[in-house]
Amino acid sequence: MGYELYYWPSIQGRGEFIRLALEEAGADYVDVARRPGKRGVPAMMKLMENPRLIRSPYAPPFVKAGKIIVAQTANVLLFLGPRLKLAPRDEGGRLWAHQLQLTISDLVDEIHDTHHPVSSWLYFEEQRPAARRRTKDFWRYRVPKFLSYFERVLNKNGGRVTIGRRLTYVDLSLFQIVEGLRYAFPKRMKRFERKIPGLIALHDRIAQRPRIADYLASPRRIPFSQWGIYRYFKELDA
Amino acid sequence: MGYELYYWPSIQGRGEFIRLALEEAGADYVDVARRPGKRGVPAMMKLMENPRLIRSPYAPPFVKAGKIIVAQTANVLLFLGPRLKLAPRDEGGRLWAHQLQLTISDLVDEIHDTHHPVSSWLYFEEQRPAARRRTKDFWRYRVPKFLSYFERVLNKNGGRVTIGRRLTYVDLSLFQIVEGLRYAFPKRMKRFERKIPGLIALHDRIAQRPRIADYLASPRRIPFSQWGIYRYFKELDA
Repeated sequence: MGYELYYWPSIQGRGEFIRLALEEAGADYVDVARRPGKRGVPAMMKLMENPRLIRSPYAPPFVKAGKIIVAQTANVLLFLGPRLKLAPRDEGGRLWAHQLQLTISDLVDEIHDTHHPVSSWLYFEEQRPAARRRTKDFWRYRVPKFLSYFERVLNKNGGRVTIGRRLTYVDLSLFQIVEGLRYAFPKRMKRFERKIPGLIALHDRIAQRPRIADYLASPRRIPFSQWGIYRYFKELDA
Repeated sequence: MGYELYYWPSIQGRGEFIRLALEEAGADYVDVARRPGKRGVPAMMKLMENPRLIRSPYAPPFVKAGKIIVAQTANVLLFLGPRLKLAPRDEGGRLWAHQLQLTISDLVDEIHDTHHPVSSWLYFEEQRPAARRRTKDFWRYRVPKFLSYFERVLNKNGGRVTIGRRLTYVDLSLFQIVEGLRYAFPKRMKRFERKIPGLIALHDRIAQRPRIADYLASPRRIPFSQWGIYRYFKELDA
């Protein structure tokens, strides 16, 4: 079955967690909003704003599969996981994978808020002192709590993958967390990585998987920039 | 089947969305951390920190049902929904309910951040200007966007309930959103309510449901306070 992914075309953002799953599975999909002209972003907006669509998404990313439209990143992965063979087969396992993914979503929110704590309607330069304070506490309290948690979960499961014996979308999302933190906070992350050797090894194994390596080297992978969740500000990476 | 709910005993917080579902269903449950002495919070901490527990929650709330432990508020409702007959029966409907619940979770995060935008490790008094600015943008951009979205979803479905023909946990959660915003921002909310007549009517119908009315009048309902997601600061309610 073919999938349509709808997400902002110029950033990795939350859509990247879905792209990684589609790519690893070798799924047949279209990244709709990246199409040129009217078939791109305008098509996405038209679908979202369709007054006759009852189950209309609050925001991208969302995925269309036949007549079904599913939004909210973690919910999309809950839906796609079994179809792409990137989720456990039993109910308990699927809930556990989803629970971890929701915890990753919480971390993603907090990563974004390091550079925009006060308001998304202000520039970074207008909320610099708050961003510095937020980032300090983020690295002092939040990163250790979140990443040590995932490190423990991984190790309790044997260290190869996070859940069961097969790769899941959770592993791919943890790869992306490492990628993003390395981009936004290269110095801080370099120091921190020795505390999470399991996650770093997982990241490195995933980067070498043939489909992921192919994807990362392709134009389908949007580069990191100053407009996504992960942004690099030298002063926040002290 | 009996359920054990684990959540901080002194606040409504995120646990309240689960309590409302359990109460509306007349479910047999124990609010574990509210038990006195060692059987309360220490029992919750012991379970969370059990090194032999593979599927260990990152944070409360979580629910234990037999041997299954499920965490993350929306995930708990995804799990409980069908069991409590508070979710649609088909897969598409369940994903839709969950999608809405995740959007409610996003709103809840933003409500919390109005009074603690910079850092949870600072007192409100230490981040006052940032809180004022955050709250201004929250009411200018975010509340209208979120609540108008839910109002539209409700109206597209006929106005009685949010999904299908029966009450779901999403309706109960929307009730709680209205309750909380009224507590934290009585003046602002009073002005805003005329824009969301459908949601307000839904709130009022839910408040009158026998089991909910009974619950709200009981000591099982923890009062709002200055320690939860919703806090009242006169200066933020200008």
